[in-house]
Amino acid sequence: MTYQLHYWPTIQGRGEFVRLALEAAGAEYVDVARAPPGQGGGEAALVGRLRDPGNPRAAFAPPFLVDGDVVVGQTAAILLYLGPRLGLSGTGETDALWTHQLQLTIADAVGEAHDTHHPISTGAYYEDQREAARARARAFREERIPKFLDWFERVLQLNPSGDLHLVGDSLSYADLSLFQLVAGLRYAFPKATARALANTPAVVKLHANIARRQRVRDYLDSPRRIPFNEEGIFRCYPELDG
Amino acid sequence: MTYQLHYWPTIQGRGEFVRLALEAAGAEYVDVARAPPGQGGGEAALVGRLRDPGNPRAAFAPPFLVDGDVVVGQTAAILLYLGPRLGLSGTGETDALWTHQLQLTIADAVGEAHDTHHPISTGAYYEDQREAARARARAFREERIPKFLDWFERVLQLNPSGDLHLVGDSLSYADLSLFQLVAGLRYAFPKATARALANTPAVVKLHANIARRQRVRDYLDSPRRIPFNEEGIFRCYPELDG
Repeated sequence: MTYQLHYWPTIQGRGEFVRLALEAAGAEYVDVARAPPGQGGGEAALVGRLRDPGNPRAAFAPPFLVDGDVVVGQTAAILLYLGPRLGLSGTGETDALWTHQLQLTIADAVGEAHDTHHPISTGAYYEDQREAARARARAFREERIPKFLDWFERVLQLNPSGDLHLVGDSLSYADLSLFQLVAGLRYAFPKATARALANTPAVVKLHANIARRQRVRDYLDSPRRIPFNEEGIFRCYPELDG
Repeated sequence: MTYQLHYWPTIQGRGEFVRLALEAAGAEYVDVARAPPGQGGGEAALVGRLRDPGNPRAAFAPPFLVDGDVVVGQTAAILLYLGPRLGLSGTGETDALWTHQLQLTIADAVGEAHDTHHPISTGAYYEDQREAARARARAFREERIPKFLDWFERVLQLNPSGDLHLVGDSLSYADLSLFQLVAGLRYAFPKATARALANTPAVVKLHANIARRQRVRDYLDSPRRIPFNEEGIFRCYPELDG
């Protein structure tokens, strides 16, 4: 069965956490909104599906995943669904729950990273909330980036199976998502992230290990990986770093 | 087995979504930090447990739940764990996943409600970010409250089993959490919420139905229900409503 991922076609955004899981597992999938409109793709197809009155369980927002009769939205819920199917959530219920808990904490960090450039309203331009953005970004850099990264470092250091993975001794979607969080933070806040990562060697090592996995590397080198840009969650505005 | 809930003892906050599920199901639980320090309770016990180096899977933040050997943090993950055990997540994997997706969307709304009074930094006082709070609260009132409530109205209206529940035809933790979201929005933004609820009759009805369930009513009337206050997520600052 080929998975259908529905997400905005021009950004990594929250959809990237799903793309990474599918790619790292070698799963067959279609990134629907990036397909040609003539083949059922394009952004209009995505929006149409969200508003389809024939779908009583349409998601609040992208991303959402279609797998046969199953339609699931919310990034973390998609990964919860895919985890056992792709072999990316450890062993048994306790590991699956822990993997999910890690994912939800990464999602919190991602949401806060987004709000550094949109602290007032997602419906307004960045340029119209720059002053608040500077203040929020300062607090995020000084308090939140270190707090989140230190917590993931602790999880890695205390993992009884070793510090190579967040969950047990094998790859999980939480590892992939932490890779993406680190990549995004480095793009958006290079100076502040470098300072925080100086205290979290296991997080740095995890990021590097993920990046050199064959399937992940192939993906990152392919046109399927959309470059970071200033429409996504992680945006490089030098005035917000420091 | 008596569940142990660990959460801040003086606010509803995110822990309230767990309390409501436990109460509505008639589950045995201890709200640990509200117990006397002499009996292992108090805030110090909670903080100590979070920092315990002997716990390799300590949560990033409260709430967390202890059930024998299982320790799980993140509100939505706790409810994911409790859902099938308390009979509060529908029937089968698809319903459980949908219940969770609804919960994650409620969590997004809750996070945005929190940030109306702390748009710059959770580490700073409200009084030091009032100007940004006014701007963020305006956008939240005008764009986000209606968008979230309209979506839940749609879910209720399109539920093939009727508009009394979000998932199928029985109580789920998503119903309880939507009740709490509506209660919180009404407390924090009475005028704006009344306007939005005028367009969402099924959401209004769900809130009322939940409030009159015997166990929920008993809970709400008991001292176990901490009143809304200006330390929690939903805060009544009249200057943020309108």
